[in-house]
Amino acid sequence: MVPAEEIARRHAALQEELAADGLDAVLVVEASDLVYLTGVMADAHLVVARAGEPVLLVRRGIERAIADSPLADVRPLGSLRELGPVLAERGVRRLGLEMDVLPAARYLRYGQLLEGIELADGAEAIARVRAVKSPWEAGCMRRAAAQLGEAFRAAPDLVAHEETDLAIQIELERVLRRAGHQGPLRFRGLNGVMFYGAVLAGPDGAVAPWADTPLGGPGPNAAVGKGPGGWRIADGDAVTVDLVGAADGYLADATRTFFRGEPRAPLAEALRVCAAILDDLEGLMRPGVPAQDLYRRGLELATDAGFGDHWMGHGPARVRFVGHGIGLDINERPFLAEGFEAPLAAGNAIAVEPKLVFPGVGAVGVENSYLVTESGPERLT
Amino acid sequence: MVPAEEIARRHAALQEELAADGLDAVLVVEASDLVYLTGVMADAHLVVARAGEPVLLVRRGIERAIADSPLADVRPLGSLRELGPVLAERGVRRLGLEMDVLPAARYLRYGQLLEGIELADGAEAIARVRAVKSPWEAGCMRRAAAQLGEAFRAAPDLVAHEETDLAIQIELERVLRRAGHQGPLRFRGLNGVMFYGAVLAGPDGAVAPWADTPLGGPGPNAAVGKGPGGWRIADGDAVTVDLVGAADGYLADATRTFFRGEPRAPLAEALRVCAAILDDLEGLMRPGVPAQDLYRRGLELATDAGFGDHWMGHGPARVRFVGHGIGLDINERPFLAEGFEAPLAAGNAIAVEPKLVFPGVGAVGVENSYLVTESGPERLT
Repeated sequence: MVPAEEIARRHAALQEELAADGLDAVLVVEASDLVYLTGVMADAHLVVARAGEPVLLVRRGIERAIADSPLADVRPLGSLRELGPVLAERGVRRLGLEMDVLPAARYLRYGQLLEGIELADGAEAIARVRAVKSPWEAGCMRRAAAQLGEAFRAAPDLVAHEETDLAIQIELERVLRRAGHQGPLRFRGLNGVMFYGAVLAGPDGAVAPWADTPLGGPGPNAAVGKGPGGWRIADGDAVTVDLVGAADGYLADATRTFFRGEPRAPLAEALRVCAAILDDLEGLMRPGVPAQDLYRRGLELATDAGFGDHWMGHGPARVRFVGHGIGLDINERPFLAEGFEAPLAAGNAIAVEPKLVFPGVGAVGVENSYLVTESGPERLT
Repeated sequence: MVPAEEIARRHAALQEELAADGLDAVLVVEASDLVYLTGVMADAHLVVARAGEPVLLVRRGIERAIADSPLADVRPLGSLRELGPVLAERGVRRLGLEMDVLPAARYLRYGQLLEGIELADGAEAIARVRAVKSPWEAGCMRRAAAQLGEAFRAAPDLVAHEETDLAIQIELERVLRRAGHQGPLRFRGLNGVMFYGAVLAGPDGAVAPWADTPLGGPGPNAAVGKGPGGWRIADGDAVTVDLVGAADGYLADATRTFFRGEPRAPLAEALRVCAAILDDLEGLMRPGVPAQDLYRRGLELATDAGFGDHWMGHGPARVRFVGHGIGLDINERPFLAEGFEAPLAAGNAIAVEPKLVFPGVGAVGVENSYLVTESGPERLT
């Protein structure tokens, strides 16, 4: 269970951000935001106003919401019509909604039901609060990271002996589960899919992604279209093991690259470059450094090493980031991406993943998850 | 790969439904709808107008969209601003969007960019087409069902020897994966999560769900809040194994209940009732029968057997359906639910799952996936 003081701290921080965005309240319905602000998952609406106690209105799962959430005010919600009076009592005139994920039909329905209330975006305010992790959250992420340690210890033997990348992935999924991995993971946004990460071998590591990730892979079929497709590992192949651990909702993300036999050129050299870039970037993981500086520094180093065209993808599939915030979702603030000038802050949790992709040959890379602290990065993985 | 004639058939059927709904075109962005109408996954917009060839506009994943989709017109999409001219060329004045899942921010952006075009719901038209499966789709579902066969053959030994329901689940996940299970599954809608189904033992089988499902389970933590929580199986416990297979995107859903030792009362009797109800309901699985009749008949039989209060959940957590359509998503048309009067049609694929829940004791049930045909149901699982 999430401690009551942890939830209270989150609400206080959110109330400050609501004031900054000129919102009187937010109406929260998305899973990760709900879990973050209540400590439990339910089919529910949470109202957090700029002042006063939050109220959780539950359509399904109320018994456990009452038992497991520190919130004092948990009530059944029979109909969306009950929302209006709750907001009116709190004097809400400008209401934040999770506009990045709230279905359009629901948005229009709120518009009908909440006449006189201006609807605006509340997702940004919540995301800013979620970007700064507490010591309690860092503890969850350390447990998620420990699962990855077990998987990476099991990987070399599997890389040496299994026939395909998919076979390795299946065994590592079991290692993770037995190490306490929760199973389902969250990738915020329409069509977001995250399934343990991916083991990708040989040229399949360079199959371009449809999602906003540096690596893709063919996947088991065209409907999934990401992850391992069963490449038969040959001598010289790189096997990129990019996995996501998950404990108490919180994720940790890390990548290790292994080789079967003597690595095919230029994969070994490229992996050394990735490792050197990650070492270098650790020096930039401190409060006050603009997030995009890490991306730019990585690109500069990759280019200096002669791998500029292979940096974080290839051709039109290349991504313009070198890492991402991580927490309850795999894609949180801050984004270490071109155009993101906001500075890193103490408490940010970030996954940094320099990768190089060689079409027809393979992909290599390293990745760790870090906590940004005043005294420098704490490596979690 | 999805055959070209299969995709062409789907487009022709959709064009008829667009006419019925007074839509000039649909703009498709959701994963399962995209896969259904293109044969591939991509970060893309698909435009299907009432006449003429569809066009697929791809932001990420274009190489594979060109390689793997039978569509003739696949183009890169650099900016959402390019959508306007494509729709104008086709004379679109009323455009269908996937209002049940399209994020509100995107909906509002389309409204700005597509001035003069009326935005309406297109999800209903697509859902009606998807509800009628082709022989090719039934073939995929049979392969998904075969995975479940492997899992159910492995289950009795695991139920006899593993310490917890979670341990059984982990081993069955591996059995499914090795039998060809694709991994990620889709549950349409905000916060939809589907992770292989769930193995639930003892009283944990009766822990109320937060999702719209008859069984819930405590889950590994409050953030997931569904699935096994690691109940230590005792003599007399029911172990409900509700699993979802997945091949080429298509799902199959089935449940079997096992016991450790002599079942605690009234679980054995309740399971016999569930099996008898499913047998009975097979007689209603034919074209022309209103979908809600299956729910009502199940409730009637459960009530006659003295289990009315335990039918499909308990107390406020009870659901008002006895089954659901299944295909690329776990929750497709038709819903076998109170209030759904539309008749079953040949080609519907449905999962029917009579279950009885006893708080503090456990849950039992059976479930199979079926194809509705003119000559009666074909059991897939």
